[in-house]
Parts: sequence; C-alpha cells; structure tokens
Amino acid sequence: MTAIALPTTAKPVAAGPFSAEERAAVYRAIYSRRDVRSQFTDRPVEEPVLLRLLEAAHHAPSVGFMQPWDFIVIREVTVKAQVQAAFAAANAEAAEMFAEERQPLYSALKLEGIVQAPVNLCITCDRDRGGPVILGRTHAPEMDLYSTVCAVQNLWLAARAEGIGVGWVSIFREGALRDILGLPAQVVPVAYLCLGHVNELYSEPELQAKGWAQRLPLNDLIHHDGWAQSAR
Amino acid sequence: MTAIALPTTAKPVAAGPFSAEERAAVYRAIYSRRDVRSQFTDRPVEEPVLLRLLEAAHHAPSVGFMQPWDFIVIREVTVKAQVQAAFAAANAEAAEMFAEERQPLYSALKLEGIVQAPVNLCITCDRDRGGPVILGRTHAPEMDLYSTVCAVQNLWLAARAEGIGVGWVSIFREGALRDILGLPAQVVPVAYLCLGHVNELYSEPELQAKGWAQRLPLNDLIHHDGWAQSAR
Repeated sequence: MTAIALPTTAKPVAAGPFSAEERAAVYRAIYSRRDVRSQFTDRPVEEPVLLRLLEAAHHAPSVGFMQPWDFIVIREVTVKAQVQAAFAAANAEAAEMFAEERQPLYSALKLEGIVQAPVNLCITCDRDRGGPVILGRTHAPEMDLYSTVCAVQNLWLAARAEGIGVGWVSIFREGALRDILGLPAQVVPVAYLCLGHVNELYSEPELQAKGWAQRLPLNDLIHHDGWAQSAR
Repeated sequence: MTAIALPTTAKPVAAGPFSAEERAAVYRAIYSRRDVRSQFTDRPVEEPVLLRLLEAAHHAPSVGFMQPWDFIVIREVTVKAQVQAAFAAANAEAAEMFAEERQPLYSALKLEGIVQAPVNLCITCDRDRGGPVILGRTHAPEMDLYSTVCAVQNLWLAARAEGIGVGWVSIFREGALRDILGLPAQVVPVAYLCLGHVNELYSEPELQAKGWAQRLPLNDLIHHDGWAQSAR
C-alpha cells in the first residue's frame, strides 16, 4: 500500500432511500434472522450461494479498509468431529457454571449444529494485516475484531435472504479452534458458524421461545446526550 | 431471569428463502452501504426513522440473548463539540504515526462528520448485563462486545435502506467518550456513529476512491478445512 495522489474522479454519486418494498425486505432479513442449531436440512450448500455469502461478508465495513478477515470453509467430517468434541468438552464445563435450578434447562438446550450443518465456517481476524499502523485503529486496537464481526453480520443477513440458516458457536476452550484449524499466531478465530438450508425457523429467538431469557424493552435502553439522561 | 419450564408451544414455523426481488434488496443494502463522513444533509432525522433504526439494532443476535447494548442519542451541540474536540486531539496524534510519505494524504482525508451530522449515536456494551454467567459467554468473554457490533451492523444496513448515512468514528483516546458521556465503569463505548440523511454516496469505499487502500481479492481469503489449505 503506497500513497497515491487523490484521484480527481473520486466523487459521490446519487444515492437515496430504497423503495418501500426494498426497505421491507431489508427489515424482513433483520427481524426474521435466527441463531440456528437444529433446523438444518441435508441439502448441500451450493457453491455459488456460499460465494455470494462470502462476498457479502467481504463487503462489510473495515477499519482503514483493512479487511482483516479470512474465511475457513469446513466440510470435512473429521474436522467437524474435532470441533464438535471441543465444543462438548467446553459445554460440560459451562453447564456447571449456572445456578443449580437453571442447569436442567441449560442441558436441555441444543446449542450447536456442527456435525448436522453441511458447511461450517470460521471467520478469523488477522491482526497484522495492512501493517503496523491502520487508519482508525491508532487509538482502538480492537477495531479489527469489530470489523470482522461486521462481516459476520453481513453474511448472516445475506444467508437469511438465501434461505440459509446460520448458528454461531462460541463455547470452546481458549485455543481449541486455533489448534484444530492450524491458525497462525496473529490470526484470531472470531466466529465459528454452522450453515445450511433451512425450511423453518423460530419466529422469535429460540432462547426466548424456550423460556431462557426475554427481550428487553427498547425504550429502557435509549439515553439522550449522555448516560444519565434515560429514555424520555 | 428465573428458569421456566420449556413451553410446549415453542416450535419453528415455515421460513424459506426470500423472493429474487427481496434478496436483491438485501444485497443492495450490503453493497451500497458506505462509511459516511461528508455527505450529510441538514435535514433532521425524523424520530420514527431513528426508532426504526434502533429497533433494527435491538434485533441483532446477542450471546445468550444478553442484549448488552444501550443507545445514547446525541443531538446537543455542546456534547457534539466535546466529542469533536476529543477526536481532533487523538487525530493529531494519529497523523504522526504514519510513514512520512502517507501523512499528506492522511491529513487530507475527512474522517468524521460529528458536528455536521444531525444525530450522533454511541452504542455501548454493558458487560455485567444479565448477571455473572451468560450462556455462550462462559468461555469467550468478548462475545458481549461482538454482539454489540452485530447491533451496529444491523443499524448500518437499515440506515442505508432508509437513506440515512452512517459513519463510525474510532479515533479517540482511551476514556475520552466515557468521560464525556458519563458512562458507568462496566459500560464500554463500542461504536460512535454519525447519522444523517444523504443524497449521494461514494460508489466504492471512500478510502479506495481516494487511493488509500484497495479491496483484496476474495479468493485469496478463502481456505478449506484449515488455515493451510488456501483458495482452490
């Protein structure tokens, strides 16, 4: 990346709001997206569909246009089995951490579809990409990780539109994914995702449907001009 | 949050892929979304529009349905002025960090629209929300921060559909936003966003249009079944 003179052709073009129908489609993706653990069908994820999802992720915002992400596509059953075993080991520890009265419900929840999902996808963050000084990251080193999460959410919404369910599995001991996938030291596994076609989804978050937690009222979360000034 | 017996009514409902038109709208949002610094118009952001954007953010995925986010809406010019001053102080330090040949271009880039944008929005993460043990966060404490970033990206895409531009400002010294906004100790400012109506946008990322960095080829970022197995 060497400095280039500012191109004289670089100027914005007209860009207004979407039509009512287009806007509704964007909101439909946002509201009907779910964290999927159990609804994957056997149907393989077609390569063009997967590439569209990865392109969507690749068009996420990134700090200083750093694009710190890589995409590890996992279809090999032996790799999935190792990841599933790593999840099971961590999840047994996790169950013990909850209050006794919550443990039966915790253990009844299915929290991953690693083996069932036709495709697993690890989205990583290369913390060294683009060199030692990144525009916008000079005072906030975590911005590369946040950029990578933006890529996850782009992919998740595109997947919903494609009829592909996505589940994010985060119950792994530190280092487990790094070892299984052979990640270099500077590469952080940000998200481990299970992907597959779905014919049905919960109409509300599964943890709410199953009585684990409820949605907070939005109004309680809005403040004005500072923390102390809560919702009007 | 007490344990509740699993409701017998909790079951998935039919949910297929979107129509071609709906899918195109989702991709349009993803591909035409920009980090906006200079294209804000004076037109106020209507309250119903802002609430739709906050609802979209609030429907992001969150670890254990933790919903760790709060939304601090900033319209007060004195608060904006403080934030702008905090940016300016940090950005002067930032400019010095780049190689000498890049400094003129860095200094020529407009990196924020804090005062120009009608609305500023700080999206925070309450790291204590939901108690000490959160499902899915037992082995990955950063998952609450990542959930909050998912909320940012939901809002960003909904904003694009509404004709609202969003710019993420990340050049602040540690603690600056906490002090200005009066955040409690357990609340982390994840994103400081500038929002406003836009009539035009760059057709590619502004940092690419202005020669700062180029998009990487997606194919170079895809691996199969492990890090070592690069793009086919």
